Amino acid sequence: MSLRPLQDRILVERVEETSKTKGGIIIPDTAKEKPAEGKVVAVGNGRVGDDGSLVPMELKVGDRILFSKYGGTDVKIDGNDYLIMRQDDVLGVVE
Amino acid sequence: MSLRPLQDRILVERVEETSKTKGGIIIPDTAKEKPAEGKVVAVGNGRVGDDGSLVPMELKVGDRILFSKYGGTDVKIDGNDYLIMRQDDVLGVVE
Amino acid sequence: MSLRPLQDRILVERVEETSKTKGGIIIPDTAKEKPAEGKVVAVGNGRVGDDGSLVPMELKVGDRILFSKYGGTDVKIDGNDYLIMRQDDVLGVVE
Amino acid sequence: MSLRPLQDRILVERVEETSKTKGGIIIPDTAKEKPAEGKVVAVGNGRVGDDGSLVPMELKVGDRILFSKYGGTDVKIDGNDYLIMRQDDVLGVVE
Amino acid sequence: MSLRPLQDRILVERVEETSKTKGGIIIPDTAKEKPAEGKVVAVGNGRVGDDGSLVPMELKVGDRILFSKYGGTDVKIDGNDYLIMRQDDVLGVVE
Amino acid sequence: MSLRPLQDRILVERVEETSKTKGGIIIPDTAKEKPAEGKVVAVGNGRVGDDGSLVPMELKVGDRILFSKYGGTDVKIDGNDYLIMRQDDVLGVVE
Amino acid sequence: MSLRPLQDRILVERVEETSKTKGGIIIPDTAKEKPAEGKVVAVGNGRVGDDGSLVPMELKVGDRILFSKYGGTDVKIDGNDYLIMRQDDVLGVVE
Repeated sequence: MSLRPLQDRILVERVEETSKTKGGIIIPDTAKEKPAEGKVVAVGNGRVGDDGSLVPMELKVGDRILFSKYGGTDVKIDGNDYLIMRQDDVLGVVE
Repeated sequence: MSLRPLQDRILVERVEETSKTKGGIIIPDTAKEKPAEGKVVAVGNGRVGDDGSLVPMELKVGDRILFSKYGGTDVKIDGNDYLIMRQDDVLGVVE
Repeated sequence: MSLRPLQDRILVERVEETSKTKGGIIIPDTAKEKPAEGKVVAVGNGRVGDDGSLVPMELKVGDRILFSKYGGTDVKIDGNDYLIMRQDDVLGVVE
Repeated sequence: MSLRPLQDRILVERVEETSKTKGGIIIPDTAKEKPAEGKVVAVGNGRVGDDGSLVPMELKVGDRILFSKYGGTDVKIDGNDYLIMRQDDVLGVVE
Repeated sequence: MSLRPLQDRILVERVEETSKTKGGIIIPDTAKEKPAEGKVVAVGNGRVGDDGSLVPMELKVGDRILFSKYGGTDVKIDGNDYLIMRQDDVLGVVE
Repeated sequence: MSLRPLQDRILVERVEETSKTKGGIIIPDTAKEKPAEGKVVAVGNGRVGDDGSLVPMELKVGDRILFSKYGGTDVKIDGNDYLIMRQDDVLGVVE
Repeated sequence: MSLRPLQDRILVERVEETSKTKGGIIIPDTAKEKPAEGKVVAVGNGRVGDDGSLVPMELKVGDRILFSKYGGTDVKIDGNDYLIMRQDDVLGVVE
């Protein structure tokens, strides 16, 4: 069972905080708006503009992302926790 | 008797919560904005942009959807409960 | 004497609540935003976009509609009560 | 001396309330937003969109209109009272 | 020394209230939003839309206008008082 | 060392108030929103619209401008005070 | 490990305040909205308009920028502090 996000939404699996202890991206405690890390597991087809043209997604399945903590809706599928959010809530791709 | 939604609206039949006990999508109690599950029973023709072009619907009749609980208007047709909402209130399609 | 609505407005005759006792659409008391039923008696020519193109109306005279109770302006013409509202205040067409 | 309204504005002469006693349009006291009746005495050239195209006026001089009471600016020209309002404040044309 | 207004702005010389005693336009004391009278002494080139097209001005130098009292910025040039406002604050042209 | 403003921003050098005693533009104390005078020392390339077209700047380096006091950000470059503001905060060009 | 910003976002390395003592740009204490200085270390592909056209970035990697202090999200990558912000939060490029 899976969930196909609509339009410019993505389905994200949150990455465990413990994986950050070995270097990489750390969110400082003093940060005003703390971002979180996750993995894209499904992407929508993209936003459709007023003139009917499709704006393709910049993200793809498998992308490791940094996203704003105030975006997204929690959902549990087959016992796993996911987040559904709009691509615009994503700050960047970890490479 | 039925209801044909206007523009980018859809008619949704809420799916009973009890059907979720056998695996699948569960909305955690700790979720900030809890989504709900439903089945699309009718779709509008789509939104019409400022230049007169039609933006077709991404959803179709029969789609099993996850939608935001704060969207939609309750209505009872022939004794059954439905919700009328805009496609934009739909988070994704359950597959 | 009649009233021709401007742009994307329609003139609606409210349908009596008593006509709903024989099945059909019933608005539950628990509904957050209760819609109402009506009959379209006149429609405008449609909204005109910024580039001058006309967006034609999806509704036509005679349509039985469900509309949001918070839309529309009451008016009395030749002793009868009507409502003037924008097409966007209409949720769907009863068929 | 006269006033030529700019863009999508119109100049309206308010119609006396007493003319409504012989049938026609009556605004009920219970109406939430009471519209008023008037006669169009001058119209602007129309709104100009972002791409420079002119959106022509749907109203013309002589039209008998119903308009929202919360729109418009009072002005007195050569001793007569008028209202300047945008076409969008007009609900419909009385025919 | 003069001031060339930018974009869709105009430079306006306020017309003295005393000139209104011999007929013409009078603003009633009961008016909710009282307009004022003025003469256009300079006009900008016009607003530029998102696609780069210029929306030409409807007003020209010498036009006698009625404008909303809540628009505009006072400025004194070579000892004379003027107002800088956007064309959209102008209700109509006195003819 | 200099600063190149981004998009539709300009860099402005404030003009000393004392230069206004010999005629020219004076801002009355009674003005609701007092504008200030300045000289354009750098201009951006212009705003880019949604369709990718560039909207060129109306202002150029050397222009003497009147701008709204509530716009702009103070910055000191090589010991001199400047303001960075959007072209839309500029009321007009002094000629 | 690095971060590729999405759309019109950039990754910025804050420039130490001490580097400003030898001339250059100084933000006065009296400034209402104090800007900060930084260096662009990564840029997104640019914003995508409603019609699907890409609006390219005006900034490039290596640009020394002045940005609004109220924009951006703090993030730590491989032990270094960065800011993710939209290009629109950038006031200008130091040259």
